[in-house]
Amino acid sequence: MARRKSGKNTAPPDRSLRYRNLKHPFAPQTVFSEDEVASIHDTALRVLEELGMKILLDEARDTFSESGAIVDGDMVRIGRDLVNEAIRTAPSRFELRCANPERAIDYKNGALFFRPGAGCPNCSDRIRRRRPGTLRDFEETIKLSQNFEVIHGFGPCVEPQDIPVQFRHYETMRAQLEFGDKPMFVYSRGRAQVHQSLEMIQLGLDLDDEEFSSAAWATTNINTNSPRLLDRPMAQGIIDFARARQLLVITPFCLAGAMAPITVAGALALQHAEALACITLAQMAKPGSPVSYGGFSSNVDMKSGSPAFGTPEMFKMQLGSGQLARHIGLPWRSAAGSASNASDMQAAMENDMGLFGCMLSNATLVIHSGGWLEGGLTFGYEKFINDIEMLQSLAELCHGVSASDAEIGYDAMREVNPGGHFFAAAHTMERYRTAFYEPLVANLDNFGTWNGKGARNSFERATDLWQSALNSFVSPSTGKSARERIRAYVESNVKKGGAPLLD
Amino acid sequence: MARRKSGKNTAPPDRSLRYRNLKHPFAPQTVFSEDEVASIHDTALRVLEELGMKILLDEARDTFSESGAIVDGDMVRIGRDLVNEAIRTAPSRFELRCANPERAIDYKNGALFFRPGAGCPNCSDRIRRRRPGTLRDFEETIKLSQNFEVIHGFGPCVEPQDIPVQFRHYETMRAQLEFGDKPMFVYSRGRAQVHQSLEMIQLGLDLDDEEFSSAAWATTNINTNSPRLLDRPMAQGIIDFARARQLLVITPFCLAGAMAPITVAGALALQHAEALACITLAQMAKPGSPVSYGGFSSNVDMKSGSPAFGTPEMFKMQLGSGQLARHIGLPWRSAAGSASNASDMQAAMENDMGLFGCMLSNATLVIHSGGWLEGGLTFGYEKFINDIEMLQSLAELCHGVSASDAEIGYDAMREVNPGGHFFAAAHTMERYRTAFYEPLVANLDNFGTWNGKGARNSFERATDLWQSALNSFVSPSTGKSARERIRAYVESNVKKGGAPLLD
Repeated sequence: MARRKSGKNTAPPDRSLRYRNLKHPFAPQTVFSEDEVASIHDTALRVLEELGMKILLDEARDTFSESGAIVDGDMVRIGRDLVNEAIRTAPSRFELRCANPERAIDYKNGALFFRPGAGCPNCSDRIRRRRPGTLRDFEETIKLSQNFEVIHGFGPCVEPQDIPVQFRHYETMRAQLEFGDKPMFVYSRGRAQVHQSLEMIQLGLDLDDEEFSSAAWATTNINTNSPRLLDRPMAQGIIDFARARQLLVITPFCLAGAMAPITVAGALALQHAEALACITLAQMAKPGSPVSYGGFSSNVDMKSGSPAFGTPEMFKMQLGSGQLARHIGLPWRSAAGSASNASDMQAAMENDMGLFGCMLSNATLVIHSGGWLEGGLTFGYEKFINDIEMLQSLAELCHGVSASDAEIGYDAMREVNPGGHFFAAAHTMERYRTAFYEPLVANLDNFGTWNGKGARNSFERATDLWQSALNSFVSPSTGKSARERIRAYVESNVKKGGAPLLD
Repeated sequence: MARRKSGKNTAPPDRSLRYRNLKHPFAPQTVFSEDEVASIHDTALRVLEELGMKILLDEARDTFSESGAIVDGDMVRIGRDLVNEAIRTAPSRFELRCANPERAIDYKNGALFFRPGAGCPNCSDRIRRRRPGTLRDFEETIKLSQNFEVIHGFGPCVEPQDIPVQFRHYETMRAQLEFGDKPMFVYSRGRAQVHQSLEMIQLGLDLDDEEFSSAAWATTNINTNSPRLLDRPMAQGIIDFARARQLLVITPFCLAGAMAPITVAGALALQHAEALACITLAQMAKPGSPVSYGGFSSNVDMKSGSPAFGTPEMFKMQLGSGQLARHIGLPWRSAAGSASNASDMQAAMENDMGLFGCMLSNATLVIHSGGWLEGGLTFGYEKFINDIEMLQSLAELCHGVSASDAEIGYDAMREVNPGGHFFAAAHTMERYRTAFYEPLVANLDNFGTWNGKGARNSFERATDLWQSALNSFVSPSTGKSARERIRAYVESNVKKGGAPLLD
């Protein structure tokens, strides 16, 4: 049997380059009729017009008021004319850039990008066990995210809780600049931190003002406090990112039966209303600024009261969210992830369901695509490696195959006798090095061989892979100079006491 | 938080009834253009016309010869006129019946049916470990298959190796009749065993000749020995099942790079040629007899030389097989399954990929959908339970959701204040008992609760579920009488020495 000589466990570079700039291979599937989509959209507009959003930031209410929305205390009622104008000015396609031009992202419907599990206070691996996140963990997850081509941008996988909050963004931005060259993430935790984070990107990547504002270089995530509440840091983040023309990913987290109506259609109507309110604020702050529609709606588990992920209901919400995003002509972000407490079959299945939900709803950006355990409370290293296998498999599906005469290989079938084998056929020899995806962590040994080697399951084997990725990690060519360029800026701001959070 | 009172771990019966008679929710996706499909089909016809199949059974060669095929030694060359005639007479839809009329299957394109992992010489569970299959194991897997509505028919999950082969079919048919009321499986291991197995079904279900021949009550699986070889038991099975108008599921196992060309298109061209040869033989033996197109093509793993499952290449072959089946107008069978040696994340992911390949290619019958480990060498009980969770989730996706005004719930959104919750909303209270799929083995407890309960992963928890399913198992109402009706028949045939295998 012809075998590759390579002893590497990771896919060879030539193959992983196929995982850049993916295009969805499947037609978007639907759960609602066009009339039903219009009805959900219309209900969302009614919610904004008649019930309104509670918006806690004065500046945001003023922006709405100046544009003609009705402000009454903290409540803002937004007419559909304002929403429609926002939908009109929001771009349906924009560029998300980064240190490495080859990793720039053409953000639009039909494109497909993966980001790792994000926002986890804890992390976990088989050697060091479960622990509160530290800067070391944050840096490791940036390196792991950089290591795999199928991860297309950074997220805050683990919260570095050992760094005081007023200094934390210096470290998270520095780590992304030093260890990575993919599109970066900024937390919206107040104007001061946002401005400094964006300044660090501009400085670190050596961009003049025009270059920086010509494209999105940073992404932030905007969550509403469902139902119908937008807090101060999120509202300010919308305004600041819009003005800087950086990417706002607007993502209500509507948990059906808890913070949202218990039905798929009801949870989506609320999600849609909240997303439209935020998109409208962004477009009021700066018409034409890049926004991504987003949805991370799922259902509550009726036994435990916990958020559930990868459920059939979440899948249907993903399909419906894709329909709503296309209804308003915007690219959209979805998510996968798992509620499992262990890196087990449940964890794999929930993530797989969420990922296929993203594939069939044609989500442009897939967040939490790897490593996300406990509903986001822990980032699991071994889980991340196993999820990379799935992401690479999905990326492979984005590449078609040919059925030319040469590929079909009639001559090979003539060459091989009945009951024979194709191992040595010319058709095989010409192609065996690149014919198939080579597994990352999957083991295909027969039971005896596998057992003889220690009977290690995919959780155990994954340890080797993240360890070797970290041990052999080399920063991108841009990392060292980026770090040098921000050094004085960070030192000076640290001396001044850092930047406060907005509560 | 509103909770169900039920302490049961299995889905309540009212919900699981939704898992009968499933219809595919997704439009079939494609990997080839229509021209490419036609080209693969045409190549398959050329293979049959110019290269031919080696067919080891005299009677089959005679059948071909009498119908105008060119027989030269063991080689049979089949003109496309003969193949086209077979495609014309093969029904595109037929009924697959069983003891319970409510579990009858309308076998056609667009329908979706799951069968468990099949053909495993070994089985494994967490308590009794890995072992060669016995009759006890066979009976247990029939009971587990009967227990879950989402399993729509029986397969030979585990081979009962403790029963001598000449008596084995008496036990496997008896167990299916006694413990189940779903469509049954018969191995094609020679005319004597096939005839006796079919007689046992007719006797056990108390069917007169007309009833028995009016529909398919039994299924057999026909595998070719790729490339281009059909052995004696399989050829005889085709003839015997066709004459009895029972269901032939024709499934070449074309392993790209080993027994088939290394390309997706090439493996499918060979699969298609072999499937068409078998379908043609069936229709020659009895025009109009029910046949299902089938494909279980995948790729060889280049590191180990082993068959791989759930790979991107297999997924593309599934999409292409669906296209080829629709090209000739027949329903088709695909498969999932895993090559993993452990019930781990690899095992889950491989099966999930295979299952979504079946969903997106609109396979009518999905074999090996649960429990199949080690590429079919072991049936894993805990893996089966975890796979049932996925199958139930996919079955849930077959049911749409409404976006009526009542479902959207504008009034609920008005009722709940910003930042509030929907737990007690009237809209929630009316629906919470049935709004969501209730997980079978997934655990949604928070980490502390889960850890306090023993930190059991989904592999460990699944043990409880198969044990309780077996402990509380009640045979269907038809089981006892069916067993009584076959008793004398079996005793008499055992005394005669059983029935020989055909080599």
